[in-house]
Formats: sequence, structure tokens, C-alpha cells
Amino acid sequence: MDQFDSNDGELMLNGMTLSSLKLRAGQTPYYAYDRSVINKTIQQFRAQMPARLKLHYAIKANPMPALVDFIAPLVDGLDVASGNELNVALNSSIDTRMISFAGPGKRPKELAMAIASGTTINLESFTELNRVISLSEKFGITANVAVRVNPDFELKSSGMKMGGGSQQFGIDAENVPLLLEKIKSSNLDYQGLHIFTGSQNLNPESIQQAHKNTFELATRLSEQTQTSIKKLNIGGGLGIPYFPGEKRLELNSIAEALEQHINQFEKQFGSCHIAMELGRFLVGEAGVYVTEITDIKESRGTLFVIIDGGLHHHLSASGNFGQVIRKNYPVAVGNKMSDDNLFTTQVVGPLCTPLDILANKYSLPECDIGDLIVIYQSGAYGYSASPRDFLNHPQPIEMLV
Amino acid sequence: MDQFDSNDGELMLNGMTLSSLKLRAGQTPYYAYDRSVINKTIQQFRAQMPARLKLHYAIKANPMPALVDFIAPLVDGLDVASGNELNVALNSSIDTRMISFAGPGKRPKELAMAIASGTTINLESFTELNRVISLSEKFGITANVAVRVNPDFELKSSGMKMGGGSQQFGIDAENVPLLLEKIKSSNLDYQGLHIFTGSQNLNPESIQQAHKNTFELATRLSEQTQTSIKKLNIGGGLGIPYFPGEKRLELNSIAEALEQHINQFEKQFGSCHIAMELGRFLVGEAGVYVTEITDIKESRGTLFVIIDGGLHHHLSASGNFGQVIRKNYPVAVGNKMSDDNLFTTQVVGPLCTPLDILANKYSLPECDIGDLIVIYQSGAYGYSASPRDFLNHPQPIEMLV
Repeated sequence: MDQFDSNDGELMLNGMTLSSLKLRAGQTPYYAYDRSVINKTIQQFRAQMPARLKLHYAIKANPMPALVDFIAPLVDGLDVASGNELNVALNSSIDTRMISFAGPGKRPKELAMAIASGTTINLESFTELNRVISLSEKFGITANVAVRVNPDFELKSSGMKMGGGSQQFGIDAENVPLLLEKIKSSNLDYQGLHIFTGSQNLNPESIQQAHKNTFELATRLSEQTQTSIKKLNIGGGLGIPYFPGEKRLELNSIAEALEQHINQFEKQFGSCHIAMELGRFLVGEAGVYVTEITDIKESRGTLFVIIDGGLHHHLSASGNFGQVIRKNYPVAVGNKMSDDNLFTTQVVGPLCTPLDILANKYSLPECDIGDLIVIYQSGAYGYSASPRDFLNHPQPIEMLV
Repeated sequence: MDQFDSNDGELMLNGMTLSSLKLRAGQTPYYAYDRSVINKTIQQFRAQMPARLKLHYAIKANPMPALVDFIAPLVDGLDVASGNELNVALNSSIDTRMISFAGPGKRPKELAMAIASGTTINLESFTELNRVISLSEKFGITANVAVRVNPDFELKSSGMKMGGGSQQFGIDAENVPLLLEKIKSSNLDYQGLHIFTGSQNLNPESIQQAHKNTFELATRLSEQTQTSIKKLNIGGGLGIPYFPGEKRLELNSIAEALEQHINQFEKQFGSCHIAMELGRFLVGEAGVYVTEITDIKESRGTLFVIIDGGLHHHLSASGNFGQVIRKNYPVAVGNKMSDDNLFTTQVVGPLCTPLDILANKYSLPECDIGDLIVIYQSGAYGYSASPRDFLNHPQPIEMLV
């Protein structure tokens, strides 16, 4: 984990030590997100990727309003997955026309929010189309719609498959022409296509293959239906390294291939807002979850370090959020970064359940009560994706640093 | 699922139909807990179990204050696992002396709350003992303490093992004599032992074996240290059926064996508050999670029913809370209970993640938008154990009916 500096053995985020951040938070546990790391990640992505590729932030990865406000001027669009996320996006500085709303089963009230605000609705069913047509007529507002396509191919080596086969997401590719016919004959403003195949992928070849297939599918659908296309959202899927043996994704080959796809596509269909939608990739590495050791004990040869946070604050790091095999997130003693005399340690939370493990058989410096245990790679799907009321312990604080 | 009646094809909780409950809630999704089912469960347990066995409710299973208040007069004690749960217990009608507080890594502030209120603190480490002695002296209040023992045996066939081997829970049995010596020489009021071996067990033989071992261990520790014992908490562990093939636990043989253990123990040590601590067993079957269908679509031969709730409200039912293999909770269409023309259906939530499945390849009546999808066995570890802010959809309402 090289994204943060340390000073005198203490980890720092954007120039502040963890102990200063504890004072700023007024407590442990806390989540802290480093503005400089987010900014650097975005700038590096921009520098490596084709200049014509637009970058969207998928709010669901981390919907903290201050963080969304910080990111808004650095990206070209925001993608939301619920009415409340839409509200966060609308409160930011983003151009409203650059917000898109995806997700199965959007409720009529949410569709109305999107229509009224000029947000692009990524349609995921024929029901949704009919609802948008009727609400649009009712309000006398032309709705902006795109079509989320369930592709006829799969993203290989993906942490989560979200396209291909039977899916609750989007319209099966083979039914898109029928939907586009209906859109054409309606009063809706057609924006384009959204093709999302999966997430948390660390394999450049399979990402390239998915991009190739995505552009082919977008080309085929647009040709077949003779529709012009203003926006093409090619999804995200870029992963970050969590577990031993995983490495940061090499973007070069992905970028080169994308350059060609974009040139080819724009040559055929004219200038187009072609965007990649990233959540975890932009913010995941910028965040840490920090807890304090409240007790240390040995039980039959195992050293237990008990912290004041746990799975209720960080379900993914505990390995209990849909993971089949539990693996450790990267962990450190944040105030003993230079200490290299290591001991096998079990880091557990305060919950009365054996699921509450934050680090299993992990090599850590000798721990003392009061030391700060840090979980890295916690900027995405941490705070908001955890059962924070479970056992009713105090809530963590979120900070943008 | 026979714990609820239905009327004219509609499921009822304590005399109210699901659609009336939707009006009462003002929305879907909602959780509803049936007072009459909780009461019946407790009365049946009392009738089958030895009269001298005390019954405690473990708040962590469902900490809704109204539900805790309803249960308090029906049980002999409340067990809490955090300072905030302690507050809920203290606000109920329970005799304060019948509250006990367990959990690794209790913070000094939580220990102070327990000391000030006369709650029994189940000590889980030597650090905790020292903190309690010093806080007790500081406040000039004699603290009530018990010792949570990490036994030297395991509960077999348990959903979760919480004793035996190395554990973050309790004091290893072999170290209990040393701890008891320290308690004796302190100003603390020693209450007794807490031996908790596991949870969600549906095998009467292994529960009986654990009880046998528990009484033997309590006897051995009390003899060895020549301490009198006022309270013995023998844990819980009684499961409820969730999945195909699982049946309600037969209590008869467990009760008979317990009767003998209790007689034997009280003969040797005098009258004692011997309690079983149950959470899920008392409330799990009394609750349902109810959602409304917002959309229905077919994708490549699979029928998807999309509801307005999902894993963010009910993580366990989605199979993503530490489960290795996803299995379906019992599910029904709550307004079509008499309809027996069934179709294989995929019930999914509104989240943009393939994890958001509430029923996988489940046989259900033909569904329509607006129908109510019910998840049974949702009275425990549902609302409070779910990442309710994930993707920022509206919160469910909780109701006691």
C-alpha cells in the first residue's frame, strides 16, 4: 500500500496523521478519504486514457455528499442508482444533463424526480418505458432516456457479472430494437446506450475483450435500428487490488484499444459522449477505516486484538458480504508503520459473533491497547454498505481529508 | 410456515391482513412482528421446559424498543451486547438486576453504564476485570460481575460456534480459577458463570450434549474455586427452521435432560438463577419482511420479479451475510396464499448488484405488479443486521402488530 505517506512511523492522509484525524473526528472508529489520492487517481486515469473518453463517477461506490461534491468538478458525469443518490448528484456542481440513473425497478416517484431534473433515465424494462412516457406526458416535460442493454456476451474474470445470460439488469440485446422503435414513436429524447458488463476486474485482456464486444454491440444496435446516438456508456469494471497476489491494473493496453474503438465509432456515428463509469476504481484506494484497540488477550495460543469497530462498520473487510472465501483486506497498525518485528495476530471486532474478524492470522507489529488498526482499500463499499445498526454500537465518522 | 393465518387468500399477522398493514405502515417495504406468535412461542417454551429454568431474551436478535418492551414482562431477564442495547433494556420494565452485558472489548464508558445501573457484567478478559475494579472504586459502587467462560468443549452441528478452541469470547475455562481468585479479593459482587457455546442449532442431541458439558464445567469450576454461584447462564443455541428440509426443534428430550441437570446442580450449590438466553428462537418466526412488486420482466427464459426492497433491508435472506452457500428463505406472495398454480420465479431487489436476490428459482403463483412478496422467518437479524443505507433507497418501517 503505497498511496499514503507516513511520518515518524505514523500513517498520514493528505498531510494529517491518523492521531490528528482521530482528534478531528472526535472519536474512533472513523473512515477517512484522501482528496489528494482521489485527485491523483483521476488525473492519472485521464493522462493514460484517450482524450475523447469521458469519465463518470458511480456514486454508489461512496455516496458521502462532501466526496461527491469534491469529485463533481473532476469528472464529466455522475451515475446514480436511487432517487436519494440522484438528490446528492443534483446538489453537486455537475451539469444536470450529465447525470444518468440506472437500476432495476425504479419506482414511479424516482422516475418523476429524474424527468423533472432532466436526468437521463437508463431504461431497464418495457414497463419503465411506459411509465416514463406517461409521466412525461403528465408533466409536459420531454424526458431524456437511454437504454441499458443486457449484452449477449459476458465479461470474463469479473468480480461480479452484470451482463450476459438472464439478468435483472437492462433490456436483453435482442429486444433493444423493439424498445428503440417505441422510443422513436414517443415524445422522449433518446440519448443512447448503456452497456455494463461487470465490476472489480483486474484482468486487462478480459476488459479489452468486453470493450471490443461493447462497441460491436453498440454499432450493431445503432445500425440495425438506424438511430443516431449522443451518449454511449461503456460501463466500468476496473478493479483495485484487495488481496495477496493482486496487482494494480495496467491501463496502457486497455487505453490503446479504446482509442481505436472510439475513433472507429465516432467515424461512423459522429461525435458522441463516450463514457466509462467508475466507482470503486476512483475512490477505493483513497480511503481507510481506522479503529482503536480496546483489549488484547490470548486464548489457547492465539493472540486476539479487539478493536472498537468491526463488521458492522465494514462488512466487506470482514469477508461476510457475499464472499465465498474469506480473505484479508490489507491491514496495518497505523501508529507503528516502521515496526517490522511481526507477530501472527487475530484482529476482531466487539460483536458477539464469530463472523466479526477484520484480520485473520495476519502479521502485525506487537500491539498495545490504544494503537490504531487501519484497514486499507476502504474508500468504496465500506461505510454505506455495512449493517451499521447491528448490535447498536456507536456509528463511525466519515471524513474527507 | 404455519404460524400465521390467512383470510381470503391474504396472509394475516395477529388479525391484520398484509394490505391493512401496508396502510398502517404508510409504505412498503415493512417488517412486521406478530405479538401473538411471540407470546405463544414463549408460553410453549415455558410449558415444555423445567419450571425452574429461567428464560432470558437476547436483545441483539431484534432490538426494536417496542418489541423489547413487549417481551420484558414475559421473560426473566434481558441480555445485551452493547451500551445502546443496555439503554433499551433499562428503558423496559425488566428488573435491572436481571440484565446482563456480554461481548468482547466492552469500552470503559459501557462498563461505567453497566456499573451505574446495577447490570451484571459478563467479564471476558483480565483487562476488563481490572477496568471494572477501578471504575467501581472510582464511583464507589459495587459492580455485579459474572464470568463468561470459553469452554473446553464445542457445540456440535451449530450454525455458529462461539465456544471451544481459541476464541475472542470469554475467558478460557482453564484461566477461570485465576480470574475468580482476583474477583474474590476485590470489592466486586460475583454473580456466577455464563457459558455460551453456539447458535442456530437444530440438533437436539448436540444441544443436550452441550448442556451436559456446560453443567459439568460449571460444577467443576465452582467446586475447584469453592465459590458460591447465584446465576448460571447456559447460553442459547436453539435454532429455527429456515431452509428446505429443516424442521422445528423438538424440545422434549432437551427439557428432560435439563430437569435432571438443574436438580443435580441446585442440590449441590443451592437455589440458583439458571437461565437460557434466547434471541432468534423467541422472535425469528414471528416476523415477516413485506415488499411490493414494482416490475416484472422476462430475460432469456427467466422470469424476474423486481420488488421495492432487497438485500439492503434483509441481508441474511439475500444469502450474503456470511453464508457460504446461498439458500432461499421461505417466500410467498402474501395476497395470493390460496393460489397453487406455480411458476419458477426469480425475486430480485432494486440494487445494481447481482447479489440482490431474495428468492432464487422459487415456485410462486403468477405475480402482478403491486403484489406483496413476503419473506418469512424475518423476526431476528433482519432489519438491524442489514446495510440499510446501501444505494440509499428508502428505509423499511418496523411494526409490532
